[in-house]
Amino acid sequence: MPLEQLGYVGGRLDRADHIRMNPDQAAQALASPGARCLVLDGLDPVTQDGHLLMEPVATDASLDDHLLLGLDDEQRPVFVRLAQEVGSNFFPSPRSRAIVTEIPADEVALYGAARSLVHWHGRHPFCSVCGSRTSPEKAGWARRCGACNAEHFPRVDPVVIMLAEHEGRVLVGRQHSWPEGFYSALAGFVEPGETIEEAVMREIKEEAGVTVHAVRYVMSQPWPFPSSLMIACIGQANDDALKLDETEIQHAFWCDAAGVRAALAGKADAPFTAPPPMAVAHHLLKHWADAQVAPPGPSA
Amino acid sequence: MPLEQLGYVGGRLDRADHIRMNPDQAAQALASPGARCLVLDGLDPVTQDGHLLMEPVATDASLDDHLLLGLDDEQRPVFVRLAQEVGSNFFPSPRSRAIVTEIPADEVALYGAARSLVHWHGRHPFCSVCGSRTSPEKAGWARRCGACNAEHFPRVDPVVIMLAEHEGRVLVGRQHSWPEGFYSALAGFVEPGETIEEAVMREIKEEAGVTVHAVRYVMSQPWPFPSSLMIACIGQANDDALKLDETEIQHAFWCDAAGVRAALAGKADAPFTAPPPMAVAHHLLKHWADAQVAPPGPSA
Ligand SMILES: [Zn+2]
Ligand SMILES: [Zn+2]
Repeated sequence: MPLEQLGYVGGRLDRADHIRMNPDQAAQALASPGARCLVLDGLDPVTQDGHLLMEPVATDASLDDHLLLGLDDEQRPVFVRLAQEVGSNFFPSPRSRAIVTEIPADEVALYGAARSLVHWHGRHPFCSVCGSRTSPEKAGWARRCGACNAEHFPRVDPVVIMLAEHEGRVLVGRQHSWPEGFYSALAGFVEPGETIEEAVMREIKEEAGVTVHAVRYVMSQPWPFPSSLMIACIGQANDDALKLDETEIQHAFWCDAAGVRAALAGKADAPFTAPPPMAVAHHLLKHWADAQVAPPGPSA
Repeated sequence: MPLEQLGYVGGRLDRADHIRMNPDQAAQALASPGARCLVLDGLDPVTQDGHLLMEPVATDASLDDHLLLGLDDEQRPVFVRLAQEVGSNFFPSPRSRAIVTEIPADEVALYGAARSLVHWHGRHPFCSVCGSRTSPEKAGWARRCGACNAEHFPRVDPVVIMLAEHEGRVLVGRQHSWPEGFYSALAGFVEPGETIEEAVMREIKEEAGVTVHAVRYVMSQPWPFPSSLMIACIGQANDDALKLDETEIQHAFWCDAAGVRAALAGKADAPFTAPPPMAVAHHLLKHWADAQVAPPGPSA
């Protein structure tokens, strides 16, 4: 797949909601001769010959531990097997990063969906309302409590990731734990009771002390570690004074378009190391830099 | 507040993340003389003289059942008391709708945040990982399991709500349970492993059989019943043939800008009854209609 491709985006399966909602049809899909099961190693992807490894569904397979990911282009059902022990596993493993340049984009997206869902099931065997056991239903797209009957749905956690922009420069920052020289857009979870735009304003204020306005949406990306929805935005900063939250942010600075372009190109003299193309921050930086008018050259 | 105001948007509290993260500072805030507690009746708002009712925090109040909503303009902490019995309560009550035109917009937003958070705590006394008891921490912005130590965070569930657009008309539909004549934009939850744009394409295809492309983001709104983040979009339909999912959608039709304008104005001869201004669907329809060029009149 192209090295410049955003990761985990571009799934091609038909999610076949009508089959999920009908237990008979879901059982038929699981028993159908063309049904396949995506193989995972724990939460990691397994590849063979440049594709995700799929196996036939076992003849004794049950919807108690198989989730219907959808139908492929030939209408064959694709399942993934649920696991009981998934750990907290909130970060991408080396394998889950590496596949982004090794297999087709739609398969990366399929893996991402599967990872999020398998992780969610593994972390939700019990009912948060009453503490009793829950079991999968809707072909793995929900869990139901056997005691209080509460229905639970997979989480998708919206995260804003954003650039503050001021007079031709954008704000990039780094966390304490990141590799030396690595900077990215600031980010944080959207909280209950706020819009996307309000979350952007709050997060930039909290982390960098910068007030922004005129927030605009740029793009989104599912980030399956474990189940974020990255929402990339740009906001206009009122001024460029910084007051960092030093528990969150080790350092931040305003970078001009030339510096951002050098970082995205991986140049040795770039002012920072940018996130790779699999991350939405890379594309957000590129979107911003592409929109900047090149400075007048000596002959202008 | 203005009758045309989108509901639950425009909160003014400083969410004071640095206080939440520090148990000593959170305890000080709760004990401070200016601290106030937002009064709820179950999950319903309580108003007095055109404002949300606030009371002084009880002298024996504890962070075990008080959540810090934030600091007001005078730096006074505002809390809400957590409740144990909240029920499923997935829909707005008459009172929670009525306040939108009765109190200032920022107080409607404050109520929305409080309702989402109180509801989430009430539905999460147990750990989904191990079934043991959890207790609030971070001044109510998380819960921690006493047995397995898992940390749980309030949910925000992204929902796409969207118009398909085709040759000067947009698609509006109605669910079986809605009042006669009431139509709105189609909507559905974003699922793990998809972008906002992919969710829009999937939902319109599932519900109406319409394929859309060139999806664009318009605006967002927190919808605290119980904790949705409404993400409003418009997509271009490839054609106008409909194939409704009749379990979800009772009827849908393509409406031109004149019809949308009549519906938003509440005219008696409008082709449908539109959602009220508190709902993002109203503003999405208005955004679309405002962008349509008026048809040439007889003298043009
Ligand atoms: Zn239960
Ligand atoms: Zn636990």
